[in-house]
Amino acid sequence: MNEINWEAGAAWMKGELIPVSQASVPVTDWGLTHSDITYDVVHVWDGKFFRLDDYLLRFENSLRKCRLSVEQSRQDMRHILHQIVARSGLRYAYVSFVASRGQPLVAGCRDPRECANHFYAWCVPFVWVFTEDVIERGVRLHVDEQVRRIEQHAVDPTAKNYHWGDFTRALFAAKDAGFDNTLLLDERGNLTEGPGFNIFIIQDGIVYTPRSGVLEGITRQVAMEICAANGVTVQVTDVSLDQALQADELFATTTGGGIIPVTRINNHVFSNDAPGEITSRLRDSYWQLHNDPAMSEAVCY
Amino acid sequence: MNEINWEAGAAWMKGELIPVSQASVPVTDWGLTHSDITYDVVHVWDGKFFRLDDYLLRFENSLRKCRLSVEQSRQDMRHILHQIVARSGLRYAYVSFVASRGQPLVAGCRDPRECANHFYAWCVPFVWVFTEDVIERGVRLHVDEQVRRIEQHAVDPTAKNYHWGDFTRALFAAKDAGFDNTLLLDERGNLTEGPGFNIFIIQDGIVYTPRSGVLEGITRQVAMEICAANGVTVQVTDVSLDQALQADELFATTTGGGIIPVTRINNHVFSNDAPGEITSRLRDSYWQLHNDPAMSEAVCY
Repeated sequence: MNEINWEAGAAWMKGELIPVSQASVPVTDWGLTHSDITYDVVHVWDGKFFRLDDYLLRFENSLRKCRLSVEQSRQDMRHILHQIVARSGLRYAYVSFVASRGQPLVAGCRDPRECANHFYAWCVPFVWVFTEDVIERGVRLHVDEQVRRIEQHAVDPTAKNYHWGDFTRALFAAKDAGFDNTLLLDERGNLTEGPGFNIFIIQDGIVYTPRSGVLEGITRQVAMEICAANGVTVQVTDVSLDQALQADELFATTTGGGIIPVTRINNHVFSNDAPGEITSRLRDSYWQLHNDPAMSEAVCY
Repeated sequence: MNEINWEAGAAWMKGELIPVSQASVPVTDWGLTHSDITYDVVHVWDGKFFRLDDYLLRFENSLRKCRLSVEQSRQDMRHILHQIVARSGLRYAYVSFVASRGQPLVAGCRDPRECANHFYAWCVPFVWVFTEDVIERGVRLHVDEQVRRIEQHAVDPTAKNYHWGDFTRALFAAKDAGFDNTLLLDERGNLTEGPGFNIFIIQDGIVYTPRSGVLEGITRQVAMEICAANGVTVQVTDVSLDQALQADELFATTTGGGIIPVTRINNHVFSNDAPGEITSRLRDSYWQLHNDPAMSEAVCY
């Protein structure tokens, strides 16, 4: 028997701890066939969950918005997340927890109210949404006005979801054009978000971030808290592409890397093509917060 | 060892024929986590695939639109579909074939161009999108103007996809209000489609169906062919909700049941709350076509 490589990641499914490579969802599960599923992702840094309560609370809100109901309580979920990270032994991890509509209780039924919803979770080594060299030089984002973000009266972006078709199309265009990633506009031409990150602009010392059409990111929230603690004004408002192109600095926020400098959008260059000064200070504060015991919870390895 | 119940369905995955209940997709596959996946569904009726070439051709188009590339040729796919239905022994089947983005070739990579795309297929007993008693009395559809169809500049509805978040929200509202199913409007208030079906209206003997924001359904195509063969004019055009509410008759089309009478939208009643006369004739023609050797291909059991 081959030795199991738990460091590649672990999963919890139907009460069992298994290697992540063995964790799968039936091809007929509506979580797959209808993308009728919600999830969340928390990170473990230096052996500690960062802001786990915030992620668990957001996940509960997503469940309610999606009318998904699972057996596990918040404490059960917390316990499961500790278990999978401990089993993997990972000290830096990307930890995903998921609730799926599941399959109809009666074969062939098409009523979403009559399905066996289920919860599962998995972790893998920490995922950087942007590579470290890209973070150092600043992220180059592509905006393709031909592809717009799914509108919130179609799919609610505040219930974290796997509807990435718009992101994927735009990401292909961005990669083809030599950019690191993409940023999507809504129907009115306002900034929304990119695949896995929120966006902020800084103009004359004031920080702005889109108010609608976006996930209410935990790292977005942390960035706003850091600004508040440092006397930097933040406005949550509509931000048009034109406004963004006039910005002094830009940054992205994501669980997969924190506060990330953005230095280009299409052919516009910001902050001398290098990470901006305010952005860099916020980024330092973000990582310092990981040493604050109030923000973290040690994994029970 | 328990005997395998192949009649519940069969699947083809990585070169192997397995019971559908054993077919699954990894929790980290982008087909799941980004709903970065396309599929098609053909039906087998009385031991024969109906219009299989049309479905295979549409699937190839979906692959191209999604920039997915799989090893299997059209002939390979055809062979696989025959194999799974033959293995199941089902004479009336819902046959799904799928291509997923898969997983990145390098762990942690976020570039959709660098993934191991893969193909799989599965079949289960024929699925009726509407139950037979509902088809007999006529379908009652709910239109909820608060939920709109995902726009085509976000996700292309002509590449058949699992982005059903809008459908699911609207379906909950429909079921809660006591309706059979839902029909979604686009941003401008025009009809689009429902979950798994296209819509047609008939006014003064002319048949209309939405031109955009919809899957180009094979059953929709067959319905238009039947109309043409019977001298009935079809216009593929924008159809507003107001126009639809003035219609003499309505019907839906789906691989999961063919041409289906619709008798109500919200509190509007059509064709005396019974299947319309033209609709019923079209429906009869649809089933008669299943006896036309040019339309079908016998499963190699």
